[in-house]
Amino acid sequence: MSASLGQTEVISLLSLSLACVGILANTLHGDGEPLIASIAFSGLAFSFSYALIRWLGNAFMKAGFKGRDLSKLRQVEIPETMGAVCAIVYLLIIIIFIPWPFYKDIVAATSGGGNRDVVLELQQVETGRLLHRFPHSKLASYLSAILSIQSIVILGIGDDLFDIRWRHKVLIPAFASIPLLIVYFVDFGVTKMVVPIPLRPYLGELFDLGWLYYVYMAMISIFCPNSINILAGINGIEVAQSLVIALLIMFNDALYLSPFTPYPHPATDSHLFSLYLLLPFIGVSVALLMHNWYPAKVFVGDTYCYFAGMVFAVDGILGHFSKTLILLLLPQIFNFVYSAPQLFHLVPCPRHRLPHFNPRTGLLECSTVEFKKPLARPIVDVLKLLHRFRLLRIETNEKGEVVSSTNFTLINLWLMWFGPMREDRLAMGLLAFQTGCGLVGLFIRHRMALLVFSQDNL
Amino acid sequence: MSASLGQTEVISLLSLSLACVGILANTLHGDGEPLIASIAFSGLAFSFSYALIRWLGNAFMKAGFKGRDLSKLRQVEIPETMGAVCAIVYLLIIIIFIPWPFYKDIVAATSGGGNRDVVLELQQVETGRLLHRFPHSKLASYLSAILSIQSIVILGIGDDLFDIRWRHKVLIPAFASIPLLIVYFVDFGVTKMVVPIPLRPYLGELFDLGWLYYVYMAMISIFCPNSINILAGINGIEVAQSLVIALLIMFNDALYLSPFTPYPHPATDSHLFSLYLLLPFIGVSVALLMHNWYPAKVFVGDTYCYFAGMVFAVDGILGHFSKTLILLLLPQIFNFVYSAPQLFHLVPCPRHRLPHFNPRTGLLECSTVEFKKPLARPIVDVLKLLHRFRLLRIETNEKGEVVSSTNFTLINLWLMWFGPMREDRLAMGLLAFQTGCGLVGLFIRHRMALLVFSQDNL
Repeated sequence: MSASLGQTEVISLLSLSLACVGILANTLHGDGEPLIASIAFSGLAFSFSYALIRWLGNAFMKAGFKGRDLSKLRQVEIPETMGAVCAIVYLLIIIIFIPWPFYKDIVAATSGGGNRDVVLELQQVETGRLLHRFPHSKLASYLSAILSIQSIVILGIGDDLFDIRWRHKVLIPAFASIPLLIVYFVDFGVTKMVVPIPLRPYLGELFDLGWLYYVYMAMISIFCPNSINILAGINGIEVAQSLVIALLIMFNDALYLSPFTPYPHPATDSHLFSLYLLLPFIGVSVALLMHNWYPAKVFVGDTYCYFAGMVFAVDGILGHFSKTLILLLLPQIFNFVYSAPQLFHLVPCPRHRLPHFNPRTGLLECSTVEFKKPLARPIVDVLKLLHRFRLLRIETNEKGEVVSSTNFTLINLWLMWFGPMREDRLAMGLLAFQTGCGLVGLFIRHRMALLVFSQDNL
Repeated sequence: MSASLGQTEVISLLSLSLACVGILANTLHGDGEPLIASIAFSGLAFSFSYALIRWLGNAFMKAGFKGRDLSKLRQVEIPETMGAVCAIVYLLIIIIFIPWPFYKDIVAATSGGGNRDVVLELQQVETGRLLHRFPHSKLASYLSAILSIQSIVILGIGDDLFDIRWRHKVLIPAFASIPLLIVYFVDFGVTKMVVPIPLRPYLGELFDLGWLYYVYMAMISIFCPNSINILAGINGIEVAQSLVIALLIMFNDALYLSPFTPYPHPATDSHLFSLYLLLPFIGVSVALLMHNWYPAKVFVGDTYCYFAGMVFAVDGILGHFSKTLILLLLPQIFNFVYSAPQLFHLVPCPRHRLPHFNPRTGLLECSTVEFKKPLARPIVDVLKLLHRFRLLRIETNEKGEVVSSTNFTLINLWLMWFGPMREDRLAMGLLAFQTGCGLVGLFIRHRMALLVFSQDNL
C-alpha cells in the first residue's frame, strides 16, 4: 500500500470534503437540518478515514500493529488495527455533530434571551414550549452512546495490544456498556415492554421488566460486538457485514421518516437518533472497506469489530428497536450458536478456525479440526446427526470413531456447501446471505408483527 | 517489581475495598450522600489501580511499553505508560459514580410516579420542583467532562505508542477539549465574566466574552496537560505535582462546603462537582505515585500527564474556578515561559533536557546545551542578563562567545540554585515549591480579590 494518496484520490477526497463543508455551512442558515448535516459529516468522515488509513499505515507497522495475510501466496506484512483510526475519526465526527440536532432549540431559546441559568418565566413554563424544544435528556443519551463507543475503542485497542484471552475478551463489551446503562438508569429510561397479544391476559398490555431490562440491554451490548468478532477472518468480511447491517438498519429507520410515515410520528425522533449514529459509521466503514477488501491492504483488528458491534447495540437500545436489531443479526446468531461447541470446548478448538488456503489452486477450503482423543458418546451422536443434515462434515477411521470434523463456523459451512472458492467470492456469498436474511427479517418485522402485536409501530 | 502482591498488600487492599463497599452500600439507605460515596469510590480506585499496576506490568513490557531509567546506576527496563491503567480505572469509577449525585432526584421523581416520557402535569411544572431537582443539564456537563478525559486518554496512548512529534502533540489536548466545549455551547454555558472594579466604567459589571470565552477554555485545556507534560523527567515528579495541585484544588473546594460556608451557597454545587471529579483522581494517583516515586518501579508515560492536566482543566472550567486554577499552576507557567526559548527553537533544544546523572556521586546535576553555531546578538544579551540574575548559567570561550548554557527548565534551575542532589530530594524540593506557590495563590485569591472585585464569591 502506498503511504501517500494518488493525484486522483487527492482531488476526489478534496472535492467531496469541500462539498460537505459547503452543505454544512448552508445548514447554519436555515433550520440547521440535522439529517442533512449528518450526511455531510459522513462524507467528511469518509474522506478523513480514507486519507488517515493511508498516512498512518507505516506508523502502525512501526509501532508493532502488523500482520501477515495467511490466505495469500505472497505473505507480506500489512498494517493491523486500522479500525482504530476509523473509530477515532467517527468519534470526533459525532462529537462535533452534537450542536446540529439541538440547533433549532438553541435558536428558540436564545432568541428569547434564554439562558439555562435564568429562571424560567411562568408563562414560558406553562406553555411548555421551551421544555419541549430543549431535549437535554436526549443530549445525555447521545453522550452516553458516545461514551460507550469510546470505552469500547479504548478496550479494543487494549485487546489488540495485549492479546487478551478469549474468556476475558467477552467482558470487554460488558465494561463498555456501563455508561449506556447508567445514563439510561439516571434518565428514567423506559423499562416496559409491549406484551404480545397471546400473553396479555396474564401480563397486561405493558410489562415492566424492571432491572431485567438492564440485563437484557447488557446482553445485547455484549452479544453484538462479540458476534461480529467471531464471524471474521477473511478479507473484508468484518467491515462488509457491518456495512450490510448498518444499511439495513438505515433502511428500517427511513421507513419512519417523512415521505414514508406522516410526520410527526412518535418513533420519528428515535429513528433520527439512530441515523445520526449510523451515517458517519457508514462513512468510515466504506473508507476502511476500500482498503480491507480482497486483496486486503490493511487489517481492521478486533477494535473495529467491537466498535461496529457497539454502534449497533447503542443504536438499537437508544433507538428502541433492539428486537428488530436481533432480526438483522440472524447470521451472527447462527454463527455463534453453531460455534458454541468449540467456543465452550465441548469439542476441541484450534487457535485459528480460518478456512484453509490451498496455494496450488489459490482457493479457500474448509478447515478441519482433528480429534486426538476419542470424543464422548453423546457428542459423537450429535456430530453424526449434523453430518447427516449436511451441517458438518466428519471423517471416521476404520473403527468407526470420529477422527476429524470441519471447524464450526459459518464460513467453513459455506465452503462445505458450495465447495472451495476464492476469498472475495466467499465474502460476497456470505454478504448476500446476510442481506437476504436481513430483508426477510425486516419483512417479518413489519408484515407479520400484527399477528402477535395489536399494531405495528410503523 | 514483583508482578504479584505481597500478603500484607493483599490484606490491606482487600480491607480497604471492603470498607469502601460497606460505605457505598450504606449510602443507598440514606439520601445517597454523593460526597461520601465519592470518597468510598476513591478508595476503590486506589485499590484497583494499585493491584492492576502490579499485575499488568509484565504485559505492558511485553507489548513494548518499557523504558530504562537514565538516572540510575543499574538501568534495568521497567514498564512505561502505566498512567493509562490509572486513567482507565478512573474513568470506570467516575462513570459508575454517576447515579449518586442524582440519587436524591431519582427518588423524588419516581416516588411521584415520574417518568421522563410522561408529560408533566401543569401543577408540577408550575411549582417547578421536579425541574429543579432533576439536573439533567448537570448530567450532560459531567458526561462531557468524562468524554474529554476519555478522549485525551485515547490520544495519550496514541502518543505513547507512536511517539508523535512535539508540534503535533500540542494539539492532542485541543482535540480532547472538543466534547467539553461543544456540550458547554449546547448547554448555554455562561460566557460572561465578572469585570474588575477599575474596568467597570468601560465594560459594565458583567462582560460577555462570547466566542472568546470558548477560546479561553480551549487555551486552558491545551495549557494544563502540556504544562504538566513538560515539567517532567525525574522519578515521581509528574504524579506528585499533580497530587499537590489536586489537593490544593480540593482545599479550595472545601472552603465552599458546609462547615466553612453556610449551605446553600450559589457556588456549592460547582465545587461539589469539582470534588466528584478530583477525589477518584487522587485515589489513582496515590497508587501510581507509590510505584513511581524514587526509585521508580514504573514510568507513568505522557498519557498520565495529559490525563492529569485534562482533569484539572475540565474541573476548573465546569467548576467555574479557572482563574483560581491558573494561580495553582504558577510553577508550571513559570516552567513553560522559561522553556519557551528552547521549545520555540530560539535557542537550540536537545532531544532530552533531563538533569545529568553523575554515576560517581549518584547525584543529579544541571544538564547543559552546547551552542555549535554562534547565537544572534540579541539572544546573547538576554542570556547574559539571565545569567547575571542567576536565572541561567552560561559558559563563554576566550573570545567572549557564549558556548553553552544550562537547559531552560525549572528542574535544572533548581539544581543550579541548590547544587547537585539526589533525585528524591530534588523532587521534594520542587514539590515544596509547588505547594508554597499554590498556598500563596489561594491566599491572594481569597484575601486580595476584594481589591479588584466588589466581593469574594466565598
